[in-house]
Amino acid sequence: MKFNNRNVFVSSKAKLGRNVRIGDNSVVYDNVEIGDNSIICDQCVIGEPLASYYKEMDYTNPSTVIGSDALIRSHSVIYAGCTIGGSFSSGHHITIRENTVIGNHCSVGTLCDIQGNVKIGNYCRLHSSVHISQTCSIGDFVFLYPFSVMTNDPCPPSREVKGGYIGSYTQVGVHVVILPGLQVGQNCLIGANSVVSKNVPEFSLVMGDPMRVVMDIRKYVVMGKGRPYPWMNRFDRGMPWEGIGYEKWMRQRNDLQ
Amino acid sequence: MKFNNRNVFVSSKAKLGRNVRIGDNSVVYDNVEIGDNSIICDQCVIGEPLASYYKEMDYTNPSTVIGSDALIRSHSVIYAGCTIGGSFSSGHHITIRENTVIGNHCSVGTLCDIQGNVKIGNYCRLHSSVHISQTCSIGDFVFLYPFSVMTNDPCPPSREVKGGYIGSYTQVGVHVVILPGLQVGQNCLIGANSVVSKNVPEFSLVMGDPMRVVMDIRKYVVMGKGRPYPWMNRFDRGMPWEGIGYEKWMRQRNDLQ
Amino acid sequence: MKFNNRNVFVSSKAKLGRNVRIGDNSVVYDNVEIGDNSIICDQCVIGEPLASYYKEMDYTNPSTVIGSDALIRSHSVIYAGCTIGGSFSSGHHITIRENTVIGNHCSVGTLCDIQGNVKIGNYCRLHSSVHISQTCSIGDFVFLYPFSVMTNDPCPPSREVKGGYIGSYTQVGVHVVILPGLQVGQNCLIGANSVVSKNVPEFSLVMGDPMRVVMDIRKYVVMGKGRPYPWMNRFDRGMPWEGIGYEKWMRQRNDLQ
Repeated sequence: MKFNNRNVFVSSKAKLGRNVRIGDNSVVYDNVEIGDNSIICDQCVIGEPLASYYKEMDYTNPSTVIGSDALIRSHSVIYAGCTIGGSFSSGHHITIRENTVIGNHCSVGTLCDIQGNVKIGNYCRLHSSVHISQTCSIGDFVFLYPFSVMTNDPCPPSREVKGGYIGSYTQVGVHVVILPGLQVGQNCLIGANSVVSKNVPEFSLVMGDPMRVVMDIRKYVVMGKGRPYPWMNRFDRGMPWEGIGYEKWMRQRNDLQ
Repeated sequence: MKFNNRNVFVSSKAKLGRNVRIGDNSVVYDNVEIGDNSIICDQCVIGEPLASYYKEMDYTNPSTVIGSDALIRSHSVIYAGCTIGGSFSSGHHITIRENTVIGNHCSVGTLCDIQGNVKIGNYCRLHSSVHISQTCSIGDFVFLYPFSVMTNDPCPPSREVKGGYIGSYTQVGVHVVILPGLQVGQNCLIGANSVVSKNVPEFSLVMGDPMRVVMDIRKYVVMGKGRPYPWMNRFDRGMPWEGIGYEKWMRQRNDLQ
Repeated sequence: MKFNNRNVFVSSKAKLGRNVRIGDNSVVYDNVEIGDNSIICDQCVIGEPLASYYKEMDYTNPSTVIGSDALIRSHSVIYAGCTIGGSFSSGHHITIRENTVIGNHCSVGTLCDIQGNVKIGNYCRLHSSVHISQTCSIGDFVFLYPFSVMTNDPCPPSREVKGGYIGSYTQVGVHVVILPGLQVGQNCLIGANSVVSKNVPEFSLVMGDPMRVVMDIRKYVVMGKGRPYPWMNRFDRGMPWEGIGYEKWMRQRNDLQ
């Protein structure tokens, strides 16, 4: 059956690349640009207008860009003003609000909720039900697990918006809370259910509420696995060093620079 | 493009006020009344029938009332039997089950799940992914943050349904659990990841699992911010005292009474 | 109004039983079989194709079976390859991924997210926002409460997938985390916000992070309720012993064997 354009609405002001397919009952609003070979599944809304759309006669929908080779699963909502790189994939029922910028090769799992003005690097993976509040930012190769949350209001309620930052390669466990405005260094592992309440130096293993830096992650020994962190030498699925190894990839990269 | 009535279904037994607009693929069931200037975005279901709809030949959909100036975002579900005041706004993918009563000027964020028979006052804000179980109730000017949950079964599983209560002006942090049947007083601040396991007196700062009342919130000093609680003197966006200040608004209110 | 086939799409390769009704804007893909008297509400996707659907010319959608008397609420997604028993009911916005097998008389609440290759027994109830990761399995009569999560990666990120197991009759409280590959015995009660970090013997009351087995649940006394666990003698709504009592039902069952 594949895609058969049943009740699909694409604005005449949207630009679809070659071989883009749009699922049943999906809506693509003005000024959305979708790269070649991308797939939008059923019941999605792409280029969701901002609130002023409903009030201002002369509203123009901000430009939305989705790169090539995307796979966006059903019931997802991506706001106008977002820019998403190539090879993006999503789960179902995701929401990405306005002016969010996401790099290449990222995935955003089912029920994720990315508030506006968020910046996410390349090769990041948000598993299901991750909540990122406004103005937070995330490096490259960062993974967040279900029910983890980055907050941004240090003294709620307030008009302050202080999103934090997560450094590249860091892993954020299930049910982790990152309090507003904090910096988590590169290559950390934040254990399940921790509350990050101060800045975290790179290579930290963090646990607990209140959090403690338990040890340098490079010294962390797991029975039968040796020292599994940093993880890049033992995991490569979907990473740019897949098949060649992280060290070799880094050398090639450095040689090119 | 605005709203163009593409595949919108509105029951002939629904009443829409002046200038109500309904988004693509949305469904409005019997006996729904929507106030003037309200907006229902795409893929919503308003007046969702109760389970007996599917079994009883003579089912009548209970009356659903949504006030004027609502903005209900896409993929949201509001059950038959709910009463929602004016100036309501919602995020995406929300669910509000039957017989819930919500006051004026409230907002319910993306992925919130409000079970049936809940009562929420005026000017409350539920951020994303808040879960409120049946028969809980909430005062005015209460804010709840992501992944917070009010429970109602003291001895699961059971037939007991003991929803708790949150007093006016209280702030409930991310990942907070409120155990069944508890009363949280006015003007409290419940810190991130706390488990509320007993009644909380007004003006408490609560933290931890098991919870402790750390201090009177009026004595809580935040570096560079002095004593930020109660918060009404320093935050007014969207509040009825916006522009005039809480004290003056209270005096005016008292004078009127 | 009931169901009136407004913009419903059912593949010609799907098989619907007698008196099956499909809500507005729902999509039923190839090789889905739905039992008699089942109801799919609005905006659902049943038999959601796997990712290879979009890449392979000769893709065949795996068989999806939903038993009789199901009630699947709006905006839900059930993947191709799932097998779901009779009398299933769901909330809204659920996702059940491929090759999941669910027994009879189960319910899966609003916003639940069941990743692929999960096995769930009979008479289980997942309340709202429960996340079950791949290869986890669950016995019979198990209840999980909001924001509880079963994880499966012992050393993230990795290629290991070690889903855990929850024994029959066990109750898993709100915000509980079950770490990868663990076995939780029958008849346990896992208290709100606990992190299960080792195997749990049957009849345990578990609390805290790090978890402790507090006592044998059979000795647990609740003021005014005596010893409420195991719970089967005091709760029967929707259970097979409803009206006759657990002991009698067990005797009848044993007599039959």
